[in-house]
Amino acid sequence: MPRLVMKFGGTSVADLDRIRNVARHVKREVDAGYDVAVIVSAMSGVTNQLVAWCKDAAPLHDAREYDAVVATGEQVTAGLLSIVLEGMGVNARSWQGWQLPILTSNAHGSARILDVNGAELIKRFADQKQVAVIAGFQGLHKETGRITTLGRGGSDTSAVAVAAAIGAERCDIYTDVDGVYTTDPRVAPKARRLDKIAFEEMLEMASLGAKVMQVRSIELGMLHKVRIFVRSSFVKPEDIDPKLPPPGTLICDESEIMEQQTVTGIAFSKDEAQISMRRVQDKPGVAAAIFGPLADANINVDMIVQNVSADGATTDLTFTVPSADYERARVTLEKAKDAIGFDRMDGATDVAKVSVIGIGMRSHAGVAAMAFKALSEQKINILAITTSEIKFSVLIKASQTDQAVRTLHTLYGLDK
Amino acid sequence: MPRLVMKFGGTSVADLDRIRNVARHVKREVDAGYDVAVIVSAMSGVTNQLVAWCKDAAPLHDAREYDAVVATGEQVTAGLLSIVLEGMGVNARSWQGWQLPILTSNAHGSARILDVNGAELIKRFADQKQVAVIAGFQGLHKETGRITTLGRGGSDTSAVAVAAAIGAERCDIYTDVDGVYTTDPRVAPKARRLDKIAFEEMLEMASLGAKVMQVRSIELGMLHKVRIFVRSSFVKPEDIDPKLPPPGTLICDESEIMEQQTVTGIAFSKDEAQISMRRVQDKPGVAAAIFGPLADANINVDMIVQNVSADGATTDLTFTVPSADYERARVTLEKAKDAIGFDRMDGATDVAKVSVIGIGMRSHAGVAAMAFKALSEQKINILAITTSEIKFSVLIKASQTDQAVRTLHTLYGLDK
Repeated sequence: MPRLVMKFGGTSVADLDRIRNVARHVKREVDAGYDVAVIVSAMSGVTNQLVAWCKDAAPLHDAREYDAVVATGEQVTAGLLSIVLEGMGVNARSWQGWQLPILTSNAHGSARILDVNGAELIKRFADQKQVAVIAGFQGLHKETGRITTLGRGGSDTSAVAVAAAIGAERCDIYTDVDGVYTTDPRVAPKARRLDKIAFEEMLEMASLGAKVMQVRSIELGMLHKVRIFVRSSFVKPEDIDPKLPPPGTLICDESEIMEQQTVTGIAFSKDEAQISMRRVQDKPGVAAAIFGPLADANINVDMIVQNVSADGATTDLTFTVPSADYERARVTLEKAKDAIGFDRMDGATDVAKVSVIGIGMRSHAGVAAMAFKALSEQKINILAITTSEIKFSVLIKASQTDQAVRTLHTLYGLDK
Repeated sequence: MPRLVMKFGGTSVADLDRIRNVARHVKREVDAGYDVAVIVSAMSGVTNQLVAWCKDAAPLHDAREYDAVVATGEQVTAGLLSIVLEGMGVNARSWQGWQLPILTSNAHGSARILDVNGAELIKRFADQKQVAVIAGFQGLHKETGRITTLGRGGSDTSAVAVAAAIGAERCDIYTDVDGVYTTDPRVAPKARRLDKIAFEEMLEMASLGAKVMQVRSIELGMLHKVRIFVRSSFVKPEDIDPKLPPPGTLICDESEIMEQQTVTGIAFSKDEAQISMRRVQDKPGVAAAIFGPLADANINVDMIVQNVSADGATTDLTFTVPSADYERARVTLEKAKDAIGFDRMDGATDVAKVSVIGIGMRSHAGVAAMAFKALSEQKINILAITTSEIKFSVLIKASQTDQAVRTLHTLYGLDK
């Protein structure tokens, strides 16, 4: 029998009625002939309560204890979904991370999955067609025998890792959106759902602010060639026609995408801040003097633009940081002023980054040039530009974000 | 260093403020030089929520899934208390049942503890003076690798089992009463707290309705000679004078009790029902014909009184059952009427059992006779009597319970 992984997030299992809805989705796939492993998150609200208790217990709490407390949320959902499935006549049992086990690193709160043992699941598929209901977001550190959690979006990662371990035909991520869109429909009403998107493209979409899936789970899918299908959990199981392909977006290897568009999507992020350093000493080692202290302070630097020096002795250098880190970055750089040697520091938090993504760019020249022209016609000033093989990004004034996104969406033929 | 087990129930850990209070109690004992293992219940209210979810999921739920869900309650408390302790500078870590492990039978929902591995705890006491915070009420079934729960009062049993495994000097049960009383102070205002009570006596007190501790945990304490100290969790740790013996009741071997009273306490239970079967055929096998069907129906029969047959052919037989089982017992017996052979069945639910308990009765004759005389002087009619080595019980009208308890309390010198 083909195997399928189904993953349901916190809002999809928020109460017993929704858990019953999830169970009907599972039964539908079992009836269709799949051997199914389900990965569940905590009921939404439950994790928040657990986290609040931990914070109340002590502001600086031991990450191992935090994990032991917070992991109970998924344990509860797994047990409840198993009970509901059994009540519907579907053979099912719950699995906690330590039971399979899902082995992870020791980085409590943001552990990495090292290995998933799928042997017992496969045996139970064959012997008794038992559905495995697995608590997501959690694992076991083998040496210490303690529960770990994977951090934000961890249940997606659990799902993809389990799919790889059992050789699933597909990993279905049920979420509160019905797929991946060419851009945010709230900004560009003509945005449309993509049927397919390549792993590399989705990685760019995810890291640039499309919040459907976490970067780590997509990386894992790419590495193990797990086909990930993003679909809506709010569609009633009864409303799905088994003869038609379900609505959603398949994240897959680019070889599976027949008609490759030049541009697949437009991503944007308003949580950006720009820092410009004026008249920096143009000498070897100055980049290290600037970015070393920022890295030490755990501040991610993104777009970096260095102008060609006009006077041969100094240069202007512009880069972006997350707006939440803006003040910290400025303080860090002021402290390092003597080591760096610069005249003045300017900055702005009213900036946004708009990115154009598409594997097709590799083989099409002039894709970015089209954008610069179209934006300039709209009187949108470009503050900085960065490019890579399958995307380019422009930094603009935040107030012009929506206009820029719509312009580019039309320009690259993404409108319906 | 001497070792100590401290157990806190659900109301003692109901919120973070109470958990902080518990942590100060633990720190007090650590500061006094003890190596400490703490056993905690779920925060009161949490278990009820988890149970309600299970019931909502399906009326007939798999006991293994129920255990997986419900055991999270203790897991949360153990993590939170560890965080609070660490925040107070006390080295601590949480342990779930499967981590130690606490191995149990496979009877999910009412599992029996088979073995507790205390080796790692003892090692950590010695190496780093680490306090062990253990989730009570739960264990692991080794063969299936699944979480079990111990059923009602299970955390007391966990505490006594851990105390036996680590050779603790004492197992302190912190509860919402400050010890074991000669009788219920709400009924007899002159009731007083016992300093010590023998295991055997406490077993009788517990099984007869004194709700301080569950019978199983006392049995386990008696078996492994674990000294159990019942004390109040609502006393502030700051108010305890380390130079004085703390208020509470020690449940211990009778050899540790120097001045043995004849009578230690008066227990009573109003949840009794009486069934009298008139003109039962007085022939071999008739008792089996009556009590066999009741046992099959899982109904506990307690006091049994069979009058000497007057006519040589028939007899009257009276016994008690829990009042909750009264109707079921009557229906069961009516169905077996032909097999038993009786004339009429009478019954009453307005009865109560009052018991007088004391190891000293063994060596004192006439203890019960005093009671019969005193009760008769109070015009309290005795419906049935049973006696054993260290207790005797009388069945009376429920409305006379309080009067009977006070009379016997005074009679045996238990008043302050």
